[in-house]
Amino acid sequence: MYLIGERINGMFEDIKKAVQEKDEGVIKHWVEEQIKEGADALDVNAGPSSDKPLEAMEWLIGTVRKHTDITLAVDTTKLNVMERGLELAGEGKGIINSANGEPNKLAKLLDLAKKYKAKVIGLTMNEKGIPVDASQRVEIAAQIITSATEAGISPDDLFIDAVILPVNVAQGHPPQVLETISQVKMLCDPPCRAVLGLSNVSQKCNNRPLINKVYLVMAIARGLDAAIVDVCDRDLVDSAICAELLLNKQIYCDNYCEAYRKK
Amino acid sequence: MYLIGERINGMFEDIKKAVQEKDEGVIKHWVEEQIKEGADALDVNAGPSSDKPLEAMEWLIGTVRKHTDITLAVDTTKLNVMERGLELAGEGKGIINSANGEPNKLAKLLDLAKKYKAKVIGLTMNEKGIPVDASQRVEIAAQIITSATEAGISPDDLFIDAVILPVNVAQGHPPQVLETISQVKMLCDPPCRAVLGLSNVSQKCNNRPLINKVYLVMAIARGLDAAIVDVCDRDLVDSAICAELLLNKQIYCDNYCEAYRKK
Repeated sequence: MYLIGERINGMFEDIKKAVQEKDEGVIKHWVEEQIKEGADALDVNAGPSSDKPLEAMEWLIGTVRKHTDITLAVDTTKLNVMERGLELAGEGKGIINSANGEPNKLAKLLDLAKKYKAKVIGLTMNEKGIPVDASQRVEIAAQIITSATEAGISPDDLFIDAVILPVNVAQGHPPQVLETISQVKMLCDPPCRAVLGLSNVSQKCNNRPLINKVYLVMAIARGLDAAIVDVCDRDLVDSAICAELLLNKQIYCDNYCEAYRKK
Repeated sequence: MYLIGERINGMFEDIKKAVQEKDEGVIKHWVEEQIKEGADALDVNAGPSSDKPLEAMEWLIGTVRKHTDITLAVDTTKLNVMERGLELAGEGKGIINSANGEPNKLAKLLDLAKKYKAKVIGLTMNEKGIPVDASQRVEIAAQIITSATEAGISPDDLFIDAVILPVNVAQGHPPQVLETISQVKMLCDPPCRAVLGLSNVSQKCNNRPLINKVYLVMAIARGLDAAIVDVCDRDLVDSAICAELLLNKQIYCDNYCEAYRKK
């Protein structure tokens, strides 16, 4: 399981404040915590409230890079911020988070991916929004895969995100997203990766950890191989480790969770 | 989710002792506990150690029937014990646990199912044992479905159990069982039900509740609609409720676990 830590995001109050006050200690804390808990990459998002998004991203990635050379998912909708973020993350050390099926913007982001040898997260949505049906989500995924292949991106560097919405407002979506995941894994050979920005499934729901954990396990059962998650939620990560054990992707030993974390 | 409580089974020391000493209090306790926790049916198994299996089953079901008319899964390999168990459970109130693909025995058990209007659990194994590959498991399932249909059993009364082995000794099996479940659900229309004797997946493993919970959720994601489980494991049942919520089979409300239990 490829785990991308979600915590350095201006949607969280402490990160928002840290960006505003240039408080490096908070960022250092979350870099270290998430890596300790097994993150393979860290998402970096300055938040929607920043009025100087380029400067905020520069400061954030500059601060993160003082402590780690781990892969960074540059999480922004702005093209100039994306390019600067990928440059600061370093060649082969960035993930574009995210592209979608809108052709013009996708082409520009794929150019950046090639320039900085970055991985790409492609959302199954376009200028018309997020479709409900798996078939339409898969259609957008196929278009992204085709464009990425033409641009020379390896399937292993392409993550398709079927875009989960909160279960309390869009209850028809979660089963369609599961179906999308299993179909996306069959679209090309070797397959691209299937990723989910997990926590959105439980936005404003009760007992969020249960919903996150159960949905992550369901998605792994349908083929998910990467997720943007709260890696500091031990129960969640233990569930993911156990799910991969039950798919025979990790060898069983009695202390399987510990063994996975030590790998 | 159709939940069959596993607890009245002579494999557990307290039940074994209760059967030997004809201690009705222990049986009453587990009948009440499992029903309180949401069981839709109760498994009844006198255990492998009983030297008078017919008498043991008569006493067990007789005792259970003093407290509830809930559906009972008569869990025995002996044909005469099965018939007496179904008779005592009552017409339309029994489940045969279990038949398998061995043709002669299957035919006799299907006769009993018709006679007592019982549901049937059919294991995807036969005289040659339990196959590893999903394709062979599905082949046996198809034979059982064909025989059951010819015998006039409705698909809704037929549960196919893909037979899970412990992950620590047969790690290749769990993914094959998941694949079997999803294929079994497509074998006929309307579909038969897919069931699992869940706890076996974690026999002699470390952290059994985690393995049980994660595997149940994975199986639900692949189409499982019934399970023989420890219904008194609240975490496990909460996970199953949440999984069905995320498949849009239960309507979301903030207290979804409580609401399901009150239904």
